[in-house]
Amino acid sequence: MAKNLVAEIISVGTELLLGEIVDTNATFLSTRLRDLGITVYRKSTVGDNLERLTETIKNALARSDIAILGGGLGPTDDDMTREAIAAYMNEEPYVDKQLFKELEEKFKARNRPMPSNNTKQAWLIKSAVTLPNPIGTAPGWFVKTKDEKIIITLPGPPQEMTRMWIEEVEPKLPVSSKCLYHTIIHTIGLGESFLTEKIAKYTNISEPGVGTYARGSGVDIRVAAVGNTLEEAKLIVEPVVKDICNILSEYVFGFDDDTIVSVIKRKLDAKNQTFCCIESLTGGMLASQIASCEGISRCFKGSITSYSNEIKELAGVKSETLEKFGAVSKETAIEMAESIRKLFKTDWAVSTTGVAGPGNLEGKRPGTAWIALAGPEGTSTEFVDWPGSREMVRQRVCKTALNMLFKNL
Amino acid sequence: MAKNLVAEIISVGTELLLGEIVDTNATFLSTRLRDLGITVYRKSTVGDNLERLTETIKNALARSDIAILGGGLGPTDDDMTREAIAAYMNEEPYVDKQLFKELEEKFKARNRPMPSNNTKQAWLIKSAVTLPNPIGTAPGWFVKTKDEKIIITLPGPPQEMTRMWIEEVEPKLPVSSKCLYHTIIHTIGLGESFLTEKIAKYTNISEPGVGTYARGSGVDIRVAAVGNTLEEAKLIVEPVVKDICNILSEYVFGFDDDTIVSVIKRKLDAKNQTFCCIESLTGGMLASQIASCEGISRCFKGSITSYSNEIKELAGVKSETLEKFGAVSKETAIEMAESIRKLFKTDWAVSTTGVAGPGNLEGKRPGTAWIALAGPEGTSTEFVDWPGSREMVRQRVCKTALNMLFKNL
Repeated sequence: MAKNLVAEIISVGTELLLGEIVDTNATFLSTRLRDLGITVYRKSTVGDNLERLTETIKNALARSDIAILGGGLGPTDDDMTREAIAAYMNEEPYVDKQLFKELEEKFKARNRPMPSNNTKQAWLIKSAVTLPNPIGTAPGWFVKTKDEKIIITLPGPPQEMTRMWIEEVEPKLPVSSKCLYHTIIHTIGLGESFLTEKIAKYTNISEPGVGTYARGSGVDIRVAAVGNTLEEAKLIVEPVVKDICNILSEYVFGFDDDTIVSVIKRKLDAKNQTFCCIESLTGGMLASQIASCEGISRCFKGSITSYSNEIKELAGVKSETLEKFGAVSKETAIEMAESIRKLFKTDWAVSTTGVAGPGNLEGKRPGTAWIALAGPEGTSTEFVDWPGSREMVRQRVCKTALNMLFKNL
Repeated sequence: MAKNLVAEIISVGTELLLGEIVDTNATFLSTRLRDLGITVYRKSTVGDNLERLTETIKNALARSDIAILGGGLGPTDDDMTREAIAAYMNEEPYVDKQLFKELEEKFKARNRPMPSNNTKQAWLIKSAVTLPNPIGTAPGWFVKTKDEKIIITLPGPPQEMTRMWIEEVEPKLPVSSKCLYHTIIHTIGLGESFLTEKIAKYTNISEPGVGTYARGSGVDIRVAAVGNTLEEAKLIVEPVVKDICNILSEYVFGFDDDTIVSVIKRKLDAKNQTFCCIESLTGGMLASQIASCEGISRCFKGSITSYSNEIKELAGVKSETLEKFGAVSKETAIEMAESIRKLFKTDWAVSTTGVAGPGNLEGKRPGTAWIALAGPEGTSTEFVDWPGSREMVRQRVCKTALNMLFKNL
């Protein structure tokens, strides 16, 4: 299909208009459409209102090839997305027997009675094909209109939406004849403006397109090009990726689906080594970020959240150290890491201690933190002093701790 | 002004359409407008394109009283918001001498030469009043049209936008003589459709407006009403809140700014009791959620992430229990909770063990989990069996564990 497709994203939900949730679904869909080479000129948000919703679908399809609706597939009366599409298509919804059976089975599997209003989630219209939702109760619809346009409905919960989009919708979309190739370079340890200065010769050219994006984990650099074949696009992208990696070598930790934890895991698995952590100010956040990586249990033995001095002592920190230097000190950080490494019998151990805020602790302001890394060849430390909200401070210390482990492996 | 005002939010920027940033500005504006009693029926996002931008302003003002544009006020050629408003108003922009002088002074204060393209940021049209931006280079515009409608432009950077909205825009808005009062009721432990069925008599009325919203933490119910005075609105809201709390008594855990952890903290502080946890499948996520609550360190002693059997044994679980029943078992969950309660010397202890996935463990499928709560009067357990992604399973088990603690306090 040679034509450049245009899509419009419609987020549905009065809660979005009231500002009760941030619309991350539309952001996800935008990036996926961009990578498919489908253009988005407009996004809109409407409440759960039949008339406005139907009008929005009509306006969107008057100027685009695809209308993508997210949300409003719940079981309650104010969920109107199915009704609006049926109204636009001028078709009558009916209860699909197969969908109804599957829905009943889902409730049965959870040992719960199925409320009668859930029946709506087994609705279908004759121009719609079901998009299965194995992790939720609301299936999506893939609708073809008489003039070959497409309407897609997706559930609101982000996990259900992203799975359905990737696994059910993308394989059904008409593919563009142009091929897009892109690589994401993940960096950590350098701020976005400094990083952009270092690769300035690439950020102002159009082939390949080079964009930088600040993330919780660091800064990502996206290098993308379009060609007549994937091979052609790849030939534009690859030399630039290689050169950027040379320029930023000490900050690059991975590509595309890599995360800092998955890269740490790969390195530890290769060496058959293990690690653990002990957290004071990060309070379990570091362990939680580590545990989110599939298969990490081979090399990650566990952690202690030592939110009180008693627990720090239980883990092996001497009470004299705590008294003399305080809990927020280099000395305590070192003892925390070294003791947990012995106690948990691992090759590496990371510790965090500091002030999350909002109040001061031991006379130190929020954002003050010590991180220690104990390993086979000794212990190193890093000092962080960067104020911010409780959540920002905790996030930043986790990032620094993971970067420290990564660099030392 | 007795009339109910309607506003439309227009977010401007190609980067929003490419999914490069999440639109938190629109969320902020929505909540502010809601609290001012101004209704938002639609939000839209358009790229930096003169034609589409002008058309979007026209459509918005055809159906609303106020159009609020965020973004596109930068100095570069692709920033088109000023041009689009001038085109819609059919007025010619001119360089305002005062604005130009202020802009020059800003650059001087930063010891930087002023690039010539910044001159755009000193533009004005005759129907516009300047909205000062002391923390950035782009001032906003407050425009009145011939038919008494309002166009507002705000800069894209969130800090500049929020400051300008609160300090410059709100005082200029025609104030509604009506007052809005609302309360959010937080519930946990009951799915949205069952909950909606139980309070069906309220979800279909218009005074007060009652809406339900599924959150990671449970289901929120928002009860809101408009009155001539705040007292009048309150009188409509309060009896309904009271009755809903009666109907859902066993599921309500708090109101407005409360979180399940802040409520647990309040209960434990009142009893002068402490707690701790030991996590297997949740891997630090439970501790991390707990530690995000300010001041929790008084009652939360800490936790262990026992991501291997060695660490479970180190915490006091007998190896025979692990061999006989497996790590994912009621027996192990009980021993985990009881051992950590002794080890950490706390009044309460919560344990989680199960299969996060994606693979099976000990022949059990992802989503299988046991939670135990050991307290002064013994130990209780809860079984969860609800498949999903690794992240969903971990989130759900954290929620169940916190609910279990909350209910038992």
